[in-house]
Amino acid sequence: MSVIVVGSTALDSIKTPKSSNPRLLGGSASHACVAASFFSDTSLIGIVGKDFPARYLNLYRKHQINLDALQIVPGKTFHWSGEYEVNMNNRRTLATELGVFETFSPELPKSLQKVPYVLLANIAPALQSHVLDQMRKPKFVIADTMDLWLNIAMDDLLKLLRRVDAFVLNDSEARQLTNDDNLPTAIRKIHRLGPKYVIIKKGEHGSLLSSPKGLFLAPAYPLQKVVDPTGAGDSFVGGLIGYLASRPGSVDTNLRRAIVHGSAVASFCCEGFGLNTTTKTTRQAIVKRVKELEKLVQF
Amino acid sequence: MSVIVVGSTALDSIKTPKSSNPRLLGGSASHACVAASFFSDTSLIGIVGKDFPARYLNLYRKHQINLDALQIVPGKTFHWSGEYEVNMNNRRTLATELGVFETFSPELPKSLQKVPYVLLANIAPALQSHVLDQMRKPKFVIADTMDLWLNIAMDDLLKLLRRVDAFVLNDSEARQLTNDDNLPTAIRKIHRLGPKYVIIKKGEHGSLLSSPKGLFLAPAYPLQKVVDPTGAGDSFVGGLIGYLASRPGSVDTNLRRAIVHGSAVASFCCEGFGLNTTTKTTRQAIVKRVKELEKLVQF
Repeated sequence: MSVIVVGSTALDSIKTPKSSNPRLLGGSASHACVAASFFSDTSLIGIVGKDFPARYLNLYRKHQINLDALQIVPGKTFHWSGEYEVNMNNRRTLATELGVFETFSPELPKSLQKVPYVLLANIAPALQSHVLDQMRKPKFVIADTMDLWLNIAMDDLLKLLRRVDAFVLNDSEARQLTNDDNLPTAIRKIHRLGPKYVIIKKGEHGSLLSSPKGLFLAPAYPLQKVVDPTGAGDSFVGGLIGYLASRPGSVDTNLRRAIVHGSAVASFCCEGFGLNTTTKTTRQAIVKRVKELEKLVQF
Repeated sequence: MSVIVVGSTALDSIKTPKSSNPRLLGGSASHACVAASFFSDTSLIGIVGKDFPARYLNLYRKHQINLDALQIVPGKTFHWSGEYEVNMNNRRTLATELGVFETFSPELPKSLQKVPYVLLANIAPALQSHVLDQMRKPKFVIADTMDLWLNIAMDDLLKLLRRVDAFVLNDSEARQLTNDDNLPTAIRKIHRLGPKYVIIKKGEHGSLLSSPKGLFLAPAYPLQKVVDPTGAGDSFVGGLIGYLASRPGSVDTNLRRAIVHGSAVASFCCEGFGLNTTTKTTRQAIVKRVKELEKLVQF
């Protein structure tokens, strides 16, 4: 089955102590769509300016991403620039220029309103809700977020959470949202806000799923070199929903393996700047890492 | 088969924002011996003062710990006091009074020199080496450590590492020892220092084993309430070696399950002050958590 992804479509300029990488393809929807595309037909809902490089449109097309709902409008593409410290754990934002993203208010073509798998990748929760309003009986809706929305749009986020099946956030965001330092109890509080499935991302420490079938501790693929973790979380949730949409059977049956597939895609994302490595990988290479992860946790 | 443990035997006074717990039974050897005792005959090598409460000797005896090599000498027992912050993640030492521990130089009775499983729990590496010098062809030697020894006794630690089969340390210590932020590459550097098996403790994020059979990502048991993590690392390595000594077959065959058993014992340790909860648990309750952990990681 197919997947629809709404989120940001951006140009990212990423500095590290060793290199400077201007105007990479970035944004939550870009990472998530490419990740999902390894497993399912994927449609992108986004907006870019006239300055958006043709090679990036071609990259989307190379991954057979449906661009019917990608608006290309006069003005500048959303541009984010940031800098990582030596250990790649601390990142600081140097500049955020919203450009055409400021006026983004997607109207979905009818053909996309019935897509069964919906990924509300990281953007303002009001925009996530706006897209969800247009969907007709989706089979599975998953929302991602970031700390910014907890700080400036909590009411919108709480409204959204009542309407999604699954919610993805990182461990510090889970603690912030619930005011609870203990993840297992924080998760219970998040379930009470609406989502049936809660997925906590813990970076190199893997992730944690809470579902009606109980807890699942998902591994992260151990990487010997992290080049650029930007977009890893978006790749994770993209790979997750792409895999899920590709499988027969219930969400409950497939979600654990879907998470591990997401984790494997995210590991490729971290190995290159922007989408450089993700876009060069294959479904076979991803499945190989999933098998390695299986061996890594067996006892 | 049987296990010998050398380490500190102490009285711990532990403050949290909610309570004050003076003179609990503590020390690396106390936690590790009790943990190992659930699976194997365990002997304690340690020293305490005449002030050491009889009830703590009885607690050791309740767990059938052999006390032939526990010296009880005039003077005061090693006393550590510390304070945890609200989230139980940050701890600060309020006082360290070495007492009789200052003169500790264990001489092993002949009966203990042939014990096959040797745990050098966290104490000064020179003392760990001093005990190892007295052992005759042990089957398996594992050493634990702490950041203090990296700071003040690195040469002694490096000498020790050339002589042990397995080395246990936490993630920040692994980074400090190797000057490498990436755990997989840090582990490779630690192997080069001697140990065939390297085990990295990551607290609530579980642990990581590197062995000739490859990497193993071991889960931590998700706890809804952490009362006092003091001694969790000692319980982990104690449970690990106790289980290992109880199993037929090679270390390579049993080490993954041994780590998970250690992880399960450590989870009980965190649920009460000092040894309060560990000492009330049973082998059956530990095995039950191991089975839960098996389900938690399956996909």
